[in-house]
Amino acid sequence: MSNVNVLSKRYATKEMNEIFSEKGRILSERELWITVLKAQQALGVDIPEKAIQAYEEAKDRIDLNLIHEIEERTRHDVKARIEAFNLETGGFQLIHRGLTSRDLTDNVEQIQMLHAARMIFNKYIAILDKFSAKAKQYDNIITTARTHRQAAQPTVLGRRFAMWAEELYSSLIEFETFIDSYPLRGMKGPVGTQVDLLHLLGTPAQVAKFDKGISQALGFDRVLVAPGQIYPRSLDYKLASHLAFLSSACENFAKNMRLMSGHELVTEGFQEGQVGSSAMPHKMNTRSTERISGFATLLKMYADGASRLSGDQWEEGDVSCSVVRRVSIPNMFYVSDGLCETMLTVLKEMGVYHNTIQAEVDRYLPFMASTELLTQAIARGLGREQAHSIIRKYATAEALKLRKEATSKNTLAEQLGADPEFPLSTVEIIDILANREQFIGNAKRQIERVTKQIEPLLQKYNEARLYDPQPIL
Amino acid sequence: MSNVNVLSKRYATKEMNEIFSEKGRILSERELWITVLKAQQALGVDIPEKAIQAYEEAKDRIDLNLIHEIEERTRHDVKARIEAFNLETGGFQLIHRGLTSRDLTDNVEQIQMLHAARMIFNKYIAILDKFSAKAKQYDNIITTARTHRQAAQPTVLGRRFAMWAEELYSSLIEFETFIDSYPLRGMKGPVGTQVDLLHLLGTPAQVAKFDKGISQALGFDRVLVAPGQIYPRSLDYKLASHLAFLSSACENFAKNMRLMSGHELVTEGFQEGQVGSSAMPHKMNTRSTERISGFATLLKMYADGASRLSGDQWEEGDVSCSVVRRVSIPNMFYVSDGLCETMLTVLKEMGVYHNTIQAEVDRYLPFMASTELLTQAIARGLGREQAHSIIRKYATAEALKLRKEATSKNTLAEQLGADPEFPLSTVEIIDILANREQFIGNAKRQIERVTKQIEPLLQKYNEARLYDPQPIL
Amino acid sequence: MSNVNVLSKRYATKEMNEIFSEKGRILSERELWITVLKAQQALGVDIPEKAIQAYEEAKDRIDLNLIHEIEERTRHDVKARIEAFNLETGGFQLIHRGLTSRDLTDNVEQIQMLHAARMIFNKYIAILDKFSAKAKQYDNIITTARTHRQAAQPTVLGRRFAMWAEELYSSLIEFETFIDSYPLRGMKGPVGTQVDLLHLLGTPAQVAKFDKGISQALGFDRVLVAPGQIYPRSLDYKLASHLAFLSSACENFAKNMRLMSGHELVTEGFQEGQVGSSAMPHKMNTRSTERISGFATLLKMYADGASRLSGDQWEEGDVSCSVVRRVSIPNMFYVSDGLCETMLTVLKEMGVYHNTIQAEVDRYLPFMASTELLTQAIARGLGREQAHSIIRKYATAEALKLRKEATSKNTLAEQLGADPEFPLSTVEIIDILANREQFIGNAKRQIERVTKQIEPLLQKYNEARLYDPQPIL
Amino acid sequence: MSNVNVLSKRYATKEMNEIFSEKGRILSERELWITVLKAQQALGVDIPEKAIQAYEEAKDRIDLNLIHEIEERTRHDVKARIEAFNLETGGFQLIHRGLTSRDLTDNVEQIQMLHAARMIFNKYIAILDKFSAKAKQYDNIITTARTHRQAAQPTVLGRRFAMWAEELYSSLIEFETFIDSYPLRGMKGPVGTQVDLLHLLGTPAQVAKFDKGISQALGFDRVLVAPGQIYPRSLDYKLASHLAFLSSACENFAKNMRLMSGHELVTEGFQEGQVGSSAMPHKMNTRSTERISGFATLLKMYADGASRLSGDQWEEGDVSCSVVRRVSIPNMFYVSDGLCETMLTVLKEMGVYHNTIQAEVDRYLPFMASTELLTQAIARGLGREQAHSIIRKYATAEALKLRKEATSKNTLAEQLGADPEFPLSTVEIIDILANREQFIGNAKRQIERVTKQIEPLLQKYNEARLYDPQPIL
Repeated sequence: MSNVNVLSKRYATKEMNEIFSEKGRILSERELWITVLKAQQALGVDIPEKAIQAYEEAKDRIDLNLIHEIEERTRHDVKARIEAFNLETGGFQLIHRGLTSRDLTDNVEQIQMLHAARMIFNKYIAILDKFSAKAKQYDNIITTARTHRQAAQPTVLGRRFAMWAEELYSSLIEFETFIDSYPLRGMKGPVGTQVDLLHLLGTPAQVAKFDKGISQALGFDRVLVAPGQIYPRSLDYKLASHLAFLSSACENFAKNMRLMSGHELVTEGFQEGQVGSSAMPHKMNTRSTERISGFATLLKMYADGASRLSGDQWEEGDVSCSVVRRVSIPNMFYVSDGLCETMLTVLKEMGVYHNTIQAEVDRYLPFMASTELLTQAIARGLGREQAHSIIRKYATAEALKLRKEATSKNTLAEQLGADPEFPLSTVEIIDILANREQFIGNAKRQIERVTKQIEPLLQKYNEARLYDPQPIL
Repeated sequence: MSNVNVLSKRYATKEMNEIFSEKGRILSERELWITVLKAQQALGVDIPEKAIQAYEEAKDRIDLNLIHEIEERTRHDVKARIEAFNLETGGFQLIHRGLTSRDLTDNVEQIQMLHAARMIFNKYIAILDKFSAKAKQYDNIITTARTHRQAAQPTVLGRRFAMWAEELYSSLIEFETFIDSYPLRGMKGPVGTQVDLLHLLGTPAQVAKFDKGISQALGFDRVLVAPGQIYPRSLDYKLASHLAFLSSACENFAKNMRLMSGHELVTEGFQEGQVGSSAMPHKMNTRSTERISGFATLLKMYADGASRLSGDQWEEGDVSCSVVRRVSIPNMFYVSDGLCETMLTVLKEMGVYHNTIQAEVDRYLPFMASTELLTQAIARGLGREQAHSIIRKYATAEALKLRKEATSKNTLAEQLGADPEFPLSTVEIIDILANREQFIGNAKRQIERVTKQIEPLLQKYNEARLYDPQPIL
Repeated sequence: MSNVNVLSKRYATKEMNEIFSEKGRILSERELWITVLKAQQALGVDIPEKAIQAYEEAKDRIDLNLIHEIEERTRHDVKARIEAFNLETGGFQLIHRGLTSRDLTDNVEQIQMLHAARMIFNKYIAILDKFSAKAKQYDNIITTARTHRQAAQPTVLGRRFAMWAEELYSSLIEFETFIDSYPLRGMKGPVGTQVDLLHLLGTPAQVAKFDKGISQALGFDRVLVAPGQIYPRSLDYKLASHLAFLSSACENFAKNMRLMSGHELVTEGFQEGQVGSSAMPHKMNTRSTERISGFATLLKMYADGASRLSGDQWEEGDVSCSVVRRVSIPNMFYVSDGLCETMLTVLKEMGVYHNTIQAEVDRYLPFMASTELLTQAIARGLGREQAHSIIRKYATAEALKLRKEATSKNTLAEQLGADPEFPLSTVEIIDILANREQFIGNAKRQIERVTKQIEPLLQKYNEARLYDPQPIL
Repeated sequence: MSNVNVLSKRYATKEMNEIFSEKGRILSERELWITVLKAQQALGVDIPEKAIQAYEEAKDRIDLNLIHEIEERTRHDVKARIEAFNLETGGFQLIHRGLTSRDLTDNVEQIQMLHAARMIFNKYIAILDKFSAKAKQYDNIITTARTHRQAAQPTVLGRRFAMWAEELYSSLIEFETFIDSYPLRGMKGPVGTQVDLLHLLGTPAQVAKFDKGISQALGFDRVLVAPGQIYPRSLDYKLASHLAFLSSACENFAKNMRLMSGHELVTEGFQEGQVGSSAMPHKMNTRSTERISGFATLLKMYADGASRLSGDQWEEGDVSCSVVRRVSIPNMFYVSDGLCETMLTVLKEMGVYHNTIQAEVDRYLPFMASTELLTQAIARGLGREQAHSIIRKYATAEALKLRKEATSKNTLAEQLGADPEFPLSTVEIIDILANREQFIGNAKRQIERVTKQIEPLLQKYNEARLYDPQPIL
């Protein structure tokens, strides 16, 4: 009896699940074996062409029942998969020669990881594209920027998306480099010295050619030279960490959607379950962005797990890392996949409440304009200290009043204007406040610069940016 | 050249710093040595009474310069401290007999930890006391309870404090048990077998008496029987985890103060720096509660660090844990200390804006009352499905309207009352809404029950509950 | 498409899997609903006896296909399970009245956790029993105790098991307390105030009786008073941490089996895969103890994940914790289950190589006896400083010689005995070395004391201690 | 009262401590202010040349007492440091114009981090250099490679250093890229929009020039475009993770030194404290490599802490990250510094016991040669299955015998040779075993390739590679 993997079932897409399914793994194994056969043949090992053809043809015929049957009998999983593949070819027995278990397992897992990493990279490209689009779409919505959760200065809503876009962009550039130089462990034998391959292929040059050739055929530009039985587990730690780094901008997005939602400034969507529940029809819950927060938590957790294996290789290696990797590796990709799908859905379905955003700005603008009022008052001849002191007095009082009286009407302009010592009249102050654009500084230009900066990356992955999410739970 | 410990300097109190200061540590060592001397004397080892007196008198004369001088010369820190103590007695050379370094270091660190743990326990008692007081103080302030950050049902503000009180209470009860049964490593020699003590004291019974006697004299009810050179590091992991568990209710408090503050429902205080900054005089920043969040993060980080030592003892032990413990142990107490002081300050200085809280309830009450409206409509003969459908229609529309029009006036009562199919008139609905007490369920009674439940613990530590925080940064 | 949970499939037992299976969960739900029905009936809600009977009878008839079908149609999982259960009774529609989703989900998960925690507790009792048995069984095998991986003093092999037993014992005592006072969230409604139950049942006293009654019927002595929509997530953090604490003694055991195995002192078993591989028939791999190390790593990882939810409850709660809990909760129990089964298997199958252990002691004994030689030399009139200096000179030289000449023969006795300044002859020294018992101090008595101390706990769970592990991979 | 930072005091070098000292921080601040002044002047702000000169001259005159005095009076740390700097110039008041606190703090911390990161990068270059040198130095020492702690196949000792070198090399290449593209937060004002700078400097182009100019002057090639009040904390998480990644090869080295030391194959040095303790003069403790393990643990802990801030930015930011960063940032560099110094010391002082290494190979070679014996037996006409079965029988028996009889003499050659069914005589087998080079496969060539691959990086940092460690504790 065994239970389903909840991440696989509820959140990961079919495509991601295929990579880490039993069949997906066996397929990767068979591709590895065939690649090895071809490389051995090319280096003079006696392997008939028709054998390779037979393996190629049999590759997709994966009979799980047969494999399980043999495994039951032989009590050895790798052997069972070798025998089953041989049987499918009608009896060739040529695969896995000169290899040990780890030549298979570590390398196959790396193939899976590379495929999965590329898939995730592409989905983040689509997220980056949407961040960029939203930044531009909302570049005119003047919004209250908050620090310490308090209204601080005006900004535009799109600028927040530019902020997240820039954060994600950095992580993606780094992840691209990481993937492109991700090295295969390669064919190294039980302790890494390639002794059996050397006997099989005859010369070091042949072995080097073989090892390099296979990794390139499998899509790896680099192959490690001197790993032990296993590749250094810091490589897994790095990969897990990259997945966590990538999620950071999304976690920031999600938390801020949740915060803004509580102020009724935005909604993550109008779907069933997001607008109203049966008992509380008015509620517009932030279920998807909460889930994104949860996904991000899991990714950091898997990075923590991977950190515990890094630097813990005893001599040439053992299997103390095994169960941890069996758990973390597929799951950190399922989580990333679910996170990306959810992000793309929210970015597609989210909505903005312009009027509540504007009402919030209205409420706080007199406060947020205080630096400008100070400047203008000084320009009219008031001493800096005195100007500061007057503004401070009224602003503090008004801020308290707004809370104590629970009114939505900010009367700072009226108060200040009425004070004979303050050189600006209420009308003049209101006039200053009316020109809202002056308060947002470079916000719009920053959006332009960020979106322009990331455009080349998006264009490089032109297809990926258009990815449309699959339905989520 | 060396830099100050920022946690020690900025956040920890003098009392906590004393425990982990160089002098504090040396004092604990000397107490241990004297305790050992007395126990050895009692068991027949030839130690003159006046020697013990001399050590007792010299105990507080800690000349750090002298110690550093000897250490420079001998290149051995423990020896330096032995020699300095001996010198202070005018030349007795009786301490540390039959002991190894670890008999000193592990035990002294445990003495420090026990003292520090008791200090922290007491401060959390004071926090619990304030949570309890606040729960009662605010038991009449009807407040919008939120789930998914959306208004859900009315509650009272004091109930949130009861919720945090109950969470903290559980952790404190568990911590009390942990401290009370916290075992000393004891006098065990270099690999734990007590072989040297056995030779010194003659019989196993004598050794057992010695070991037990010392731990009791030092305030430990339990002493380990069969540790190696070191006590199991899971003990540190547990202690670090308890400190993190304790912080959880406070972190919840802090995050919710920050959230509520953003809605202008509460303030963490009216101190300089909390009301206004020079550039933004209106801002009431949540600096202290943000800091509490930071402290809680650190405690989980130290628990993570401690977890990495747990279960990693090679044979009878070594010093691979040493630098980690040197860092984590004092610092997790400094952090806890800073967290407690900050919590107590906020709990003392915080304020509530009754009118904004009430305005928020006004805005959402028609929604939050929908279940009651449904019940009453059914009582008037409307079918459940139909009643539900009508309410749902108006509630959803009104919820959207509030956002789209950015109005603060909820007109659900008017809308529903005007619908001829709905059996309640607007006046009747408003009447229902007026009786707000009916919507808060057991909130007040839950406050009563929680505060009553925790009272015996508070009374048990009657002095601790009255602790007043020291000024914080 | 979805993939199987590897922990569930490869490592967890059928019994543990049942708890967290879809059927297991539904069964717990149904038990909760029936318990609620009975409690409501007892409090005067009109629920016919035969309805309860019908639900009781239908309880085990779980038609997953039907449930999935309804869920497909209604797009609501809880509703589907309600409807299916109702259908199985022939049409009663009485369950889930006055409850919200969280009244179901949080409580059901806690029921699962409590059952799983008890199961794990029991298995650790069996491990403790075996540690105790091994401690006694090996109390006569004099062994080289090592610190910093260097031979330090003699001990007995059984003492290491006593050390792990004592560590595990502490954690088990604490876990027992934790489980016994583990509180149910209880029936609290959407924000915790029980408002709907109050309307349904009429009086606070009735609600309190209802809530308490249900938790007791479900096996919980405590029920929380004032949680929000969710119980505080520090409770999950504590549970996850306890599971990690428990693993620490086992991880220490596992690492030391691996270390000792490398010196050929012990083997974890003689099973296929443990004695020899096809390519390297001589190898006795420590696969199972390596896996135990991996399991312990995972438990700390899940504790890290749980720590990230603790103290992160926004207002009355949301689902940002959901996906993290869906992952961590079952898996931390699968891992614990796998760890226990593997531990029990190794403890059953392990073996000791007496002669290699003795050879190691022979090699190092002259070094390890140096304190005794010093004492005796002084007794013969040699000055302490001089005695020390002579021993030091020869011991250091011999230690280097053993390494440089790679000989197994330690000649310290011969060297020392031949030095005219040293008052003991070689024959006398060899005589001293021959009495090995004197070098192990209290080791045996410590074993006695530890095993005696833990016996009452083992007897309290007399059945659990006899648990025999199931076959492992 | 405040205690010293133990990492700063015991393990970090003077140079690293200077960066994070109070003076070091103030110096960085002053450099920032002067850079800002110059940039403002260049953009037309009226700042007299002699003012800049005055600030330049005053830069190094840091009077901590004065600063503390002012801080005491004003209760504002930044203001105190501004005033003190102004005072040192004889009264100019031009610094910090148009800046907010965060323009100072975040940027200054990034300057510190960049300097510290470069320092650490350089020290790891020196470690890489030593790994490379050791790999070549030991390329002729045939050694027992172990998997699962069991003897598996021969290798050469230098290959392990090549393995660690290759691991470190990858991390260094990645760290170099990270540092080179590490972006400054830049001058952005309180919410990131640069509104105050825009008013001060007049045009967006001027502001952009200002921002970019300052970052370049401070040594940063990149400057962020659209951060909030703070730069995204994922940047800290990445930096902390890189420091942990870098430590992984060293942790592997350290653990393997400890393991090998337990088999008396190597020593980490012959210093006082490493050869012998007073009670146990023969012990050669692995104190330094144990400490390296501890340092690596701390680095992962700080990465865990940093992960908790990543993705947790609420709106434009707050100080909930502050205390965590105050702790983690300097300390993760102190730890890295201590780790590097200790590594370099061990790599300088370590020693190898050739004869024990050879004795170990002698003991296991007959087992490790079994594949070759199989091949040769088949070449003589024995069936594969039968050959395998015979070898397996004797190898397993001999492996058990070695353990059971605790002999160091492996008689597999004798046993096999004496079996009439086995086609090779004992003499022939011994002959095969004599040619040890054939068993190490590509080990030496792998060393060559790794050392050749990393040479360009070492040459690029030619000075850094020669760094000689300072004395350690």
